[in-house]
Amino acid sequence: MKRKIRKIAITGGTHGNELTGVFLINKFKNNPKLVKRDSFKTILMHANPKAIKKCTRYIDKDLNRSFAKKDLFNTEVYQYEDILAKTINVKLGPRGAKKTNVDFIIDLHSTTSNMGLSIVIDNNSKLTWQAAAYLKEKVPKINIFRWRGDLEDASFVNSITKDGFAIEVGAVPQGVLRADLFFETEKLISHILDFFEKSNCGKLKRKYKEIDIYDHIKLLDFPRDKKNNITAMIHPNLQDNDYTKIQKNDPLFITLEGKIISYDEEKDVYALFVNEAAYYEKGFAMCLAEKKSIKL
Amino acid sequence: MKRKIRKIAITGGTHGNELTGVFLINKFKNNPKLVKRDSFKTILMHANPKAIKKCTRYIDKDLNRSFAKKDLFNTEVYQYEDILAKTINVKLGPRGAKKTNVDFIIDLHSTTSNMGLSIVIDNNSKLTWQAAAYLKEKVPKINIFRWRGDLEDASFVNSITKDGFAIEVGAVPQGVLRADLFFETEKLISHILDFFEKSNCGKLKRKYKEIDIYDHIKLLDFPRDKKNNITAMIHPNLQDNDYTKIQKNDPLFITLEGKIISYDEEKDVYALFVNEAAYYEKGFAMCLAEKKSIKL
Repeated sequence: MKRKIRKIAITGGTHGNELTGVFLINKFKNNPKLVKRDSFKTILMHANPKAIKKCTRYIDKDLNRSFAKKDLFNTEVYQYEDILAKTINVKLGPRGAKKTNVDFIIDLHSTTSNMGLSIVIDNNSKLTWQAAAYLKEKVPKINIFRWRGDLEDASFVNSITKDGFAIEVGAVPQGVLRADLFFETEKLISHILDFFEKSNCGKLKRKYKEIDIYDHIKLLDFPRDKKNNITAMIHPNLQDNDYTKIQKNDPLFITLEGKIISYDEEKDVYALFVNEAAYYEKGFAMCLAEKKSIKL
Repeated sequence: MKRKIRKIAITGGTHGNELTGVFLINKFKNNPKLVKRDSFKTILMHANPKAIKKCTRYIDKDLNRSFAKKDLFNTEVYQYEDILAKTINVKLGPRGAKKTNVDFIIDLHSTTSNMGLSIVIDNNSKLTWQAAAYLKEKVPKINIFRWRGDLEDASFVNSITKDGFAIEVGAVPQGVLRADLFFETEKLISHILDFFEKSNCGKLKRKYKEIDIYDHIKLLDFPRDKKNNITAMIHPNLQDNDYTKIQKNDPLFITLEGKIISYDEEKDVYALFVNEAAYYEKGFAMCLAEKKSIKL
């Protein structure tokens, strides 16, 4: 790998009620040695301090949907997270610059879905995918999800830099810290830092040529009535079973009255982010993805 | 049982992000036959509509701590939930009246703790305890928790009436609806209504003489530093294991750095409401209770 990593950022509390990231940043700030490597610098950041203090996802709008170019360069948006995004963009980016202030952003999230340890990637950058493949080798149980919801103008925190990704861990409720996921996420971060150190020092044993991923197809909303009220719940077969294969006629939802609503397409898919609390207001009950191996 | 039940109330969404109750009330409103019995009337109520709309626990303060007499009769409190509490008190009570508008309140809650199906009782009223004993007979896996945190001036919604209790179901994240707990809670409510129907018609087979309960001892906070920041998490042995017996030297917490903090008292206790999201701000990590059989 030719590209040298000079500085990376670990951001937590982008959503103020996702405590794994909030407390990992606390831990790293108190124990800077844990994120110190010789060949690069690590920046630690609580991305949304006001939301963290209130233990809420956001103050005015979702910070992790506020980094699209059209918003960063729009002078007519004034909500709290719009302004915060512009500030973070200056600190870590700016987005689009040939040389950004940091080279890689690891953004820490948690989810109420049973996503285990997941890496969410929304770019096609080589270094990012090599890092993901390295992680998958070190921690085989992780899953890699390629998000293609807004590829044209990605809006995540880690979209500021060419390289980076989000870590999503779950199931954990909003506003709750779970020890098991806390320590597992910490280990994962340690592996990523090792990857950069090895990459910088030419000590990576190999270049990864392919990787198994879940590739975003589409988002699926809950069944709703004419007034937009949710009329059905995730079916118990699917609840807590993210990354499960769904085939035609498999149950997806069950109405409040007990009627089953099944998947009725021919194509086999996999369900991710099943019953994530924060997505009720966004209007989706799960992501559907296909499983594939892609060339790197 | 001599006392005749004329009217009961089922309240949901007392905490706006506890969706089991919110959606059960929706279901019952759309299918009134489900809660209809011949000998009494059932009132359905979304207790905190503004919080439900925002999918947040409360707007200004916890509604389910707003029904103490000292607050209901205090004309100097003006927060949203203070005013809401006074309104609900007039509709369902008023508290302290010889004849309240409803005779029994069933208040529906959910918790991020793995509390299964739990009944939380904060009064010593005979009818309430007979109802609880009937439920325990019908659904043996439920647990009965006697809350004694504020016995002198109870502040729960169901404190408006002499008789009533809260149902707590979990584990479910805030802002999430789980089908399994939804249907189980619905069945539990149906049993309660059957109890009142049988009681009114003299068809109860027996008077219950004793019941196994978990009796509140005290609340335990997370370890914190001088700035009041949480420094330790629920130990993995205890996470998801509500109603587990804790003995001297059993691990309770693990610090962010991995140091175990154990229970150091002689008395065996049981841990309830372990890692409930809403209690972080109240300053407790769990309730400690003792298990006992009490005479009715």
